Amino acid sequence: MRISELAGASGLPIATIKFYLREGLLQPGLATSATQATYDDGHLRRLRVIRALTGPVGLSVQQARTILGLIDDPGDDLYQTLGSAVSALPPAVEAASVDNPDPYPRARAALEALGQVYDPGFAAVAQLEAALTAAEDAGMPLSEPRLLEYGRQLRELAEFDLEQMPSEPHAAVEYTVLGTALYEPVLLALRRLAHQDVAAERTLGADRG
Amino acid sequence: MRISELAGASGLPIATIKFYLREGLLQPGLATSATQATYDDGHLRRLRVIRALTGPVGLSVQQARTILGLIDDPGDDLYQTLGSAVSALPPAVEAASVDNPDPYPRARAALEALGQVYDPGFAAVAQLEAALTAAEDAGMPLSEPRLLEYGRQLRELAEFDLEQMPSEPHAAVEYTVLGTALYEPVLLALRRLAHQDVAAERTLGADRG
Repeated sequence: MRISELAGASGLPIATIKFYLREGLLQPGLATSATQATYDDGHLRRLRVIRALTGPVGLSVQQARTILGLIDDPGDDLYQTLGSAVSALPPAVEAASVDNPDPYPRARAALEALGQVYDPGFAAVAQLEAALTAAEDAGMPLSEPRLLEYGRQLRELAEFDLEQMPSEPHAAVEYTVLGTALYEPVLLALRRLAHQDVAAERTLGADRG
Repeated sequence: MRISELAGASGLPIATIKFYLREGLLQPGLATSATQATYDDGHLRRLRVIRALTGPVGLSVQQARTILGLIDDPGDDLYQTLGSAVSALPPAVEAASVDNPDPYPRARAALEALGQVYDPGFAAVAQLEAALTAAEDAGMPLSEPRLLEYGRQLRELAEFDLEQMPSEPHAAVEYTVLGTALYEPVLLALRRLAHQDVAAERTLGADRG
């Protein structure tokens, strides 16, 4: 298809598509003349990914480029690449001081209690530390029973998510990035709605079959 | 304790405490003279809540006041008050047009599939609709098996959360607001870490006993 048709199919203005081409986020089309190129479904699919990363996920063009680079070139160590890709997603975390031998004590203790991998280079460790500190400061530290319950449920969800992961490396990175970022707001909304549902059952004694 | 001692115990500057007093977020101390007042642990506890709402939770002073008002005066219908308090938390959602008879079709269908309460006045319904739309636009619509799996796990977590809810109404509202807002980042970080742990097990075949 021509760029005008790609614009129509994607719902994006031609100027935006040209911007993504110039920025190297979108792969060039197949040149059919000195001034024309043709595009295919791969371009359309890529535009959807770019739009998700720079829209709902909230990345800058530079941050999106980092993640698209990992999708395009997953390398030989898929486990490391998946970790880097997820670490490039929001929320941004401050790097720990190199002088601090144990910068994430709460997260480390939590992961030890759960018997899970502890890798301080993975950004979610710093995120967990910040989240646990905020809860503690508010006088609501995460209790051990709550940690174990949350950890158990989320690991079951993670098993489910990983079972659905495509085996082809490029697709696996894309799935992991989008599935992490786009399903997080779904999970949070579903959690609030589950609270509401349980509260309705308890406080109203609603019989909903 | 005097205001200087309250500042020391809370770690907040006196000027900040005076600002919260003027704005009506913090209840006045007990006057001991024309220019002095005395404060107790209730003030200290309240300062922690104010700091959490305006810090990690990210509310404006005006938004925090709305929630503190619901904690102070939960009224007779605790179920409604809990819903209003959670709806006042981020993320902000746009109100649906009054002309639209079915503004949240994806969220409605999801809640019907889960057999849960559907109340379009609860902000999490609009949040779910936005999150499902974003996933769909990115070419990763939430599949029915995933919805049912996520919904089942989150409802189990919600049962756990509600079991820990204090029965006293003021404390129940505070617990619900802070537990919703402060444990969400914990859940998201734990989810990413669970993915990492499952991926490590699968791709590295790590034997972690």
